[in-house]
Amino acid sequence: MILKIGVIGTGAIGQDHIRRITNTLSGAEIVAVTDVNAAQAHAVVERENLNAKVYENGHDVIQSAEVDAVIVTSWGPTHEEFVLASIAAGKPVFCEKPLATTAEGCKRIVDAEVAYGKQLVQVGFMRRYDKGYRALKKVVDNSKIGEPLMVHCAHRAPAAPGFSGDMALTDSFPHEIDVLRWLLNDDYVSAQVILPRNTRLADKGLQDPHIVLLETKQGIRIDTEIFVNCQYGYDIQCQVVGETGTANLPEPSSVLMRSEAKLSTEILVDWKDRFIESYDIELQEWINSTVKGEMDGPSAWDGYVVAVTADACVKAKETGEVVPITMPERPEFYDKSKSLVNS
Amino acid sequence: MILKIGVIGTGAIGQDHIRRITNTLSGAEIVAVTDVNAAQAHAVVERENLNAKVYENGHDVIQSAEVDAVIVTSWGPTHEEFVLASIAAGKPVFCEKPLATTAEGCKRIVDAEVAYGKQLVQVGFMRRYDKGYRALKKVVDNSKIGEPLMVHCAHRAPAAPGFSGDMALTDSFPHEIDVLRWLLNDDYVSAQVILPRNTRLADKGLQDPHIVLLETKQGIRIDTEIFVNCQYGYDIQCQVVGETGTANLPEPSSVLMRSEAKLSTEILVDWKDRFIESYDIELQEWINSTVKGEMDGPSAWDGYVVAVTADACVKAKETGEVVPITMPERPEFYDKSKSLVNS
Amino acid sequence: MILKIGVIGTGAIGQDHIRRITNTLSGAEIVAVTDVNAAQAHAVVERENLNAKVYENGHDVIQSAEVDAVIVTSWGPTHEEFVLASIAAGKPVFCEKPLATTAEGCKRIVDAEVAYGKQLVQVGFMRRYDKGYRALKKVVDNSKIGEPLMVHCAHRAPAAPGFSGDMALTDSFPHEIDVLRWLLNDDYVSAQVILPRNTRLADKGLQDPHIVLLETKQGIRIDTEIFVNCQYGYDIQCQVVGETGTANLPEPSSVLMRSEAKLSTEILVDWKDRFIESYDIELQEWINSTVKGEMDGPSAWDGYVVAVTADACVKAKETGEVVPITMPERPEFYDKSKSLVNS
Amino acid sequence: MILKIGVIGTGAIGQDHIRRITNTLSGAEIVAVTDVNAAQAHAVVERENLNAKVYENGHDVIQSAEVDAVIVTSWGPTHEEFVLASIAAGKPVFCEKPLATTAEGCKRIVDAEVAYGKQLVQVGFMRRYDKGYRALKKVVDNSKIGEPLMVHCAHRAPAAPGFSGDMALTDSFPHEIDVLRWLLNDDYVSAQVILPRNTRLADKGLQDPHIVLLETKQGIRIDTEIFVNCQYGYDIQCQVVGETGTANLPEPSSVLMRSEAKLSTEILVDWKDRFIESYDIELQEWINSTVKGEMDGPSAWDGYVVAVTADACVKAKETGEVVPITMPERPEFYDKSKSLVNS
Repeated sequence: MILKIGVIGTGAIGQDHIRRITNTLSGAEIVAVTDVNAAQAHAVVERENLNAKVYENGHDVIQSAEVDAVIVTSWGPTHEEFVLASIAAGKPVFCEKPLATTAEGCKRIVDAEVAYGKQLVQVGFMRRYDKGYRALKKVVDNSKIGEPLMVHCAHRAPAAPGFSGDMALTDSFPHEIDVLRWLLNDDYVSAQVILPRNTRLADKGLQDPHIVLLETKQGIRIDTEIFVNCQYGYDIQCQVVGETGTANLPEPSSVLMRSEAKLSTEILVDWKDRFIESYDIELQEWINSTVKGEMDGPSAWDGYVVAVTADACVKAKETGEVVPITMPERPEFYDKSKSLVNS
Repeated sequence: MILKIGVIGTGAIGQDHIRRITNTLSGAEIVAVTDVNAAQAHAVVERENLNAKVYENGHDVIQSAEVDAVIVTSWGPTHEEFVLASIAAGKPVFCEKPLATTAEGCKRIVDAEVAYGKQLVQVGFMRRYDKGYRALKKVVDNSKIGEPLMVHCAHRAPAAPGFSGDMALTDSFPHEIDVLRWLLNDDYVSAQVILPRNTRLADKGLQDPHIVLLETKQGIRIDTEIFVNCQYGYDIQCQVVGETGTANLPEPSSVLMRSEAKLSTEILVDWKDRFIESYDIELQEWINSTVKGEMDGPSAWDGYVVAVTADACVKAKETGEVVPITMPERPEFYDKSKSLVNS
Repeated sequence: MILKIGVIGTGAIGQDHIRRITNTLSGAEIVAVTDVNAAQAHAVVERENLNAKVYENGHDVIQSAEVDAVIVTSWGPTHEEFVLASIAAGKPVFCEKPLATTAEGCKRIVDAEVAYGKQLVQVGFMRRYDKGYRALKKVVDNSKIGEPLMVHCAHRAPAAPGFSGDMALTDSFPHEIDVLRWLLNDDYVSAQVILPRNTRLADKGLQDPHIVLLETKQGIRIDTEIFVNCQYGYDIQCQVVGETGTANLPEPSSVLMRSEAKLSTEILVDWKDRFIESYDIELQEWINSTVKGEMDGPSAWDGYVVAVTADACVKAKETGEVVPITMPERPEFYDKSKSLVNS
Repeated sequence: MILKIGVIGTGAIGQDHIRRITNTLSGAEIVAVTDVNAAQAHAVVERENLNAKVYENGHDVIQSAEVDAVIVTSWGPTHEEFVLASIAAGKPVFCEKPLATTAEGCKRIVDAEVAYGKQLVQVGFMRRYDKGYRALKKVVDNSKIGEPLMVHCAHRAPAAPGFSGDMALTDSFPHEIDVLRWLLNDDYVSAQVILPRNTRLADKGLQDPHIVLLETKQGIRIDTEIFVNCQYGYDIQCQVVGETGTANLPEPSSVLMRSEAKLSTEILVDWKDRFIESYDIELQEWINSTVKGEMDGPSAWDGYVVAVTADACVKAKETGEVVPITMPERPEFYDKSKSLVNS
């Protein structure tokens, strides 16, 4: 069976997904697209030589009898609406982050999905599909380093054009929030944000870097440096410290050079290169599980947890205090999910 | 357009290719299979849930009107016959190595292809599709280390069950032969084989390790250690030394551990894991180019060069001498190939 | 000129210093020793074949006309007394850490030295003499990574026999306290201590690991993991994150092995091996500067700062709060010191 | 006892040794110096503030009753004469390489020493004192990689001003010749020299790089790349391949940087920095053993073996053939040496 997919939003990431489904992945095809810029949607269909119809809007895509499953890659503020509509239509939906722009929005999606009675939503946290993170999780899960006690992370980008306010916490950090609780099979109970000496190389008025401290239910302590104007590269670091050893997220593979008095490997600069293979794996697994009627990627509940945690981080930054992270009990409904974090 | 593929030989590697075309890659489907063990061919079709017909023999697959292109993964001695039949039928054919079991056999394929007038044959040298080798080639091609002068290589496997005689030279080394001339855009002019002190951990009577020294037209000197009972892992090393620096084939990505007084990464043990992604890329590129009517992978000529070079290595081992490597002039026909090595 | 040294305390570290001065270093000899265990002092003189007199007690060593300079390697609680006596005698004194067991004791030494009018005291913070830390400081001082913004550290030991209470903060951490302000040319303004999930492999009742967060006058944020039962090795990590790059303390040099499916280097297990060369350099530089009538190692003021900072860490641990670190203004007297940290 | 040393030759290396004996090492002092440039010898005595007499010539130094032991750091062609004179005078002598400029000269020294009846000569092969090579030897000797089968080496320098003819073989390679037979406890039986494509960055007419292939009595095969205009740094590589694993000479310790899209450590450029600590250890051990009346460093026999082997390499380069390496039986006399290689 070929999964027939409708794509809402044909911007950069939407086009990427269309291309990978069409040219690289197996078992799916794009049959419907839409965009607020209809001309662009038409151009994409033509350029990619798709056998797909251009619809007036996202709701028409969702309603289309041709469409088995939906991909939401439109502007963030529209995500909630289209995900809710997909649930209402009983159609599996893959939604790029954020699931919704507020924790309340995420909660409404959780409630709708629970009410519908079947898991339909997957959120685009692609790091869970990175081979490096998966290898790291295998080490942790197999007790190669004993019980995890601490995690030291860094999320660094060379520059952050257009960044303002708390975007380091609301835009960059959510990937860490999601992947670390998945990695640890744990949940967060508090957040604290530390503001180091500011780099002079960030946009005026922008705090950069931040250090976020998270505590988990098991007492694991996570420190994450978020530094979005670090100049030197796009660099994601993660070291788990366990009772008997430590394990680091692998560095991306690179030619080892001896040149000009340096022994060196390359560090990536463009974030798109860092997790490029993860997107392929993420979507292929989504296609495969969707065809089987399963859903085992990051769930609506996971998206909700990220939103609540990011909110706590923003409050922690504002107050300078340790902010508790509290959530309603997780609906039993999500226990069915293989991706589940045990509460 | 979906490329309709017939597979001749449903052993281990045949099944792997069937699975990747069916479940992972885009743009092709398996429509025909055959095997000397017909029951096995039927079992594969069933288990993989293929919409494919099981044919009596390879020739029937090749002749089938349903089949656009052929994959030859049968027993080595049958390769020449099926490749020649595919050429005769004017059908693109992907043949696992060896192209033929003798240099003469390879030459007959080259001659048949040239006579047919269009390049149809690709040989399964998957290392050219490895991201590591591609990154290394990019460094060399972009003169990041100046003109290449020497290459130091190692081809190590933990054990070689069933190895005998010159298989290190005729079975293991051909991958190096192919990938190094592709890497250097060069051709070989002589070979010498050195027999170091033998490991006591090889099968009785088996020489292991070997060191093969190759010289290229440009005077580049290549030394390759081939050590198929090295115990510790499957480990492929390649360092190109240029006028201004050196570049090493990347190590496979791995979690960095601190444990038991060691700072360590894992070395692969199973050769199948080392180039597993290369097979996907190799076949996807073959599918894509075949659909476009192009052919840009390792050619029949490349397969012939490998056979001639391996023969020279065997002779060099027997004689202890430096053995010249000579070949007829490359037919202009192969100049069309993008993968071409300039003579 | 040969510097004539009296050693107070001939325990393990005292004997080490006696041996290196006698057999390895240049320009000094041991002429006087004492120990609360007189028999041991005599045994050391005999075994090391010293041309040295055994004195009744430390004061006699200090007063001896034969003695140019004093090394205090006795039991910690006696340090203050002997250092004060050395100052009173106008003799240069090298004191192993701690300078005194309380901040007040350190302050008394500072006051005595200032009153005496000449710098006589050096404290045994040997990390400043480690080639790795010196190389790291050179990178930082030469702006190779821009202005430092954060420092991520780990201080790990395989086991901590005999550790109790706050010894991780008062015994292990002082080395970090000293070397980091020297590395950054900065001083501390606050401390916070975080208690992660406890390892089950520490002695019952012992908190392990700790994370200490320090803030400097310039706003640099330092996080140090102190984990004294980490099992896998004695491992000191330090990464400085600057505006344009990061720099890591070098790993100790080690043979790179490929064996048993691991690519590995060794991690030291015994702390004594980690900084063994630093002790030689530290004492040679102390001998050389003492002979010249200079004093440029860690000063009494540095010892005092460490004591005040460690006290703040203990309070931070007890209260869970961010504890300010305040000190009296540094006497101008210490501005003469080359090792000075600018306030 | 303080060893009283006379130094013949106060050029660069002579001055270095004078400084280290005077300022860094323990147990020796310089009491006599001489140089063909007497003014320079006087200047050195004054600048280094030595309590040493300047003698007319090397023979006067050797004969001086004040002198216990001799260091020969004069012009190479004079080494043989002064070493022979030291033997005649029954005084221990440390001679920088070459021991003599010809194999015959080395043999005359061996014969003289044997005739004298006591080992007096040590040759300045400092690599045996490098911590890295010692760590590597420990791995090999302790069978951590099984029996050694092959060794892959590289000897690279950024540039070779003044190099001509076969100096790569006669000047650079002798260090490898000595250290590898010491490392392997083995001796050489043949040499072959391969001339790769020449770098365009060497002086006109100079062959660079070379590859030297050595075979040992045990059948171990050594390949060494000698590349003295490699541009990028001074880089000594050595990998021993054993039956169960491989071991690499450690890279010199260096700060790990993340900067400008590179993860890098520094490669040394100046050869003097590479083995700087080895010289200290070498001379301290020579002083210590000399005081004890022992002699356990590289012997006159070792110097002779190096000369014979280098001659074979030159012949191998000229002829393109595999050249056997033959030597007279080693005098039993040298069996007393701890540094002995078993024949």
